[in-house]
Amino acid sequence: MDSLAQLRTRLRAFASARDWEQFHTPKNLAMALGGEAGELVAEMQWLGDTEIDDELSQGKLRQRLSDEAADVLLYLIRLTDVCDIDPVAAAQEKIDRNESRYPQQLSRGNTAKYTQLSSPEEST
Amino acid sequence: MDSLAQLRTRLRAFASARDWEQFHTPKNLAMALGGEAGELVAEMQWLGDTEIDDELSQGKLRQRLSDEAADVLLYLIRLTDVCDIDPVAAAQEKIDRNESRYPQQLSRGNTAKYTQLSSPEEST
Amino acid sequence: MDSLAQLRTRLRAFASARDWEQFHTPKNLAMALGGEAGELVAEMQWLGDTEIDDELSQGKLRQRLSDEAADVLLYLIRLTDVCDIDPVAAAQEKIDRNESRYPQQLSRGNTAKYTQLSSPEEST
Amino acid sequence: MDSLAQLRTRLRAFASARDWEQFHTPKNLAMALGGEAGELVAEMQWLGDTEIDDELSQGKLRQRLSDEAADVLLYLIRLTDVCDIDPVAAAQEKIDRNESRYPQQLSRGNTAKYTQLSSPEEST
Repeated sequence: MDSLAQLRTRLRAFASARDWEQFHTPKNLAMALGGEAGELVAEMQWLGDTEIDDELSQGKLRQRLSDEAADVLLYLIRLTDVCDIDPVAAAQEKIDRNESRYPQQLSRGNTAKYTQLSSPEEST
Repeated sequence: MDSLAQLRTRLRAFASARDWEQFHTPKNLAMALGGEAGELVAEMQWLGDTEIDDELSQGKLRQRLSDEAADVLLYLIRLTDVCDIDPVAAAQEKIDRNESRYPQQLSRGNTAKYTQLSSPEEST
Repeated sequence: MDSLAQLRTRLRAFASARDWEQFHTPKNLAMALGGEAGELVAEMQWLGDTEIDDELSQGKLRQRLSDEAADVLLYLIRLTDVCDIDPVAAAQEKIDRNESRYPQQLSRGNTAKYTQLSSPEEST
Repeated sequence: MDSLAQLRTRLRAFASARDWEQFHTPKNLAMALGGEAGELVAEMQWLGDTEIDDELSQGKLRQRLSDEAADVLLYLIRLTDVCDIDPVAAAQEKIDRNESRYPQQLSRGNTAKYTQLSSPEEST
């Protein structure tokens, strides 16, 4: 069984067993997701890239990021479930769209937004 | 193949083909995830719960939430990939932990944080 | 002395006395602000509007919101300071702009984004 | 008149003239603030610290950060207003608290959280 489908099933049972469906409105779940995303961001707020790599390789930071990533994923699954959205299909479509928005030759090595990408100058 | 693993593979190829690995540091990806989570929250900021249900059933809001949820999921997959974190395993462990933190009889119908939950008074 | 200017002065001294200017990059301060905004959002994630009013009037929720609002304000002041931005001038300009974007007769009682506002149909 | 007090007065009038008080619940305003904080974070997500300095000095990035900072400040003022919170008093108290939480000699040059700060070893 697909990993996201398994998690979705567990979350439904978890909420139902505690009579928490009443709290799991789209709005509340979006707020919860936003809060967890904030915690994930905050874990690295004072660290430079080198320190982050060091902390990740020594396993100290990884566990904290792992916990916060889990929280974001769980609320994302629950939110899309109550909204009847398929997040994987949406993500596949988004990558499809980005592949045409960000042609390899125009986007190589730069992160300009697709609305700012111009065709490379033609040689004469 | 598992849906998250498929997305992870596509995202790796997408970044590699554009030479974007240099931008995909843990810190930058966490910021990107935070920004997308903010957009998801903002979609519902002025809507009441009834309006949200109406808009979802008529399909107007669903597409926008679907797009934002896709963005959050994609950055979460990419972030955990570059940090060598398994988000599904982390999420399964988190549900395990929450099942003991929030016993059904104590948590039924209330969302008090586990640190605030007290045992029910024993009858004498 | 203006309240924001006072806070800005105290924050400068605070950072300087601890040799923290090195950590107070625009990027890091934006992340810190994002994290605190997430905490503010999370304080109300499971509460309905009536419960929030009740909790505010009994003073339980107010202190927590007050603490989180303080954190957001402090990081906002510090971020704009290191970027040499005047947040009050920017905010005054933003209200000016919104006053023309959201004409009273078109926006009364609805929150449609200004890009979606259309002129009222002319009577013939 | 104090700058924040002026902004608060303008925001009250703005909302009142459009009959928007009905939308300005604490919950909705917190969501709006969270969304704007996400936009602020997103402005710098792909930029390194040197690029940010360059872009700030050439004025391109400053205007965008200034706009986003204004949005955060405005929602923060409006949120604290409807909750009857004084954000400046709260911020002053927070700095007071941080001055005792982060003694200069222990915190100099490191950003360890106050709960992790230990007294320097005593010499014998």
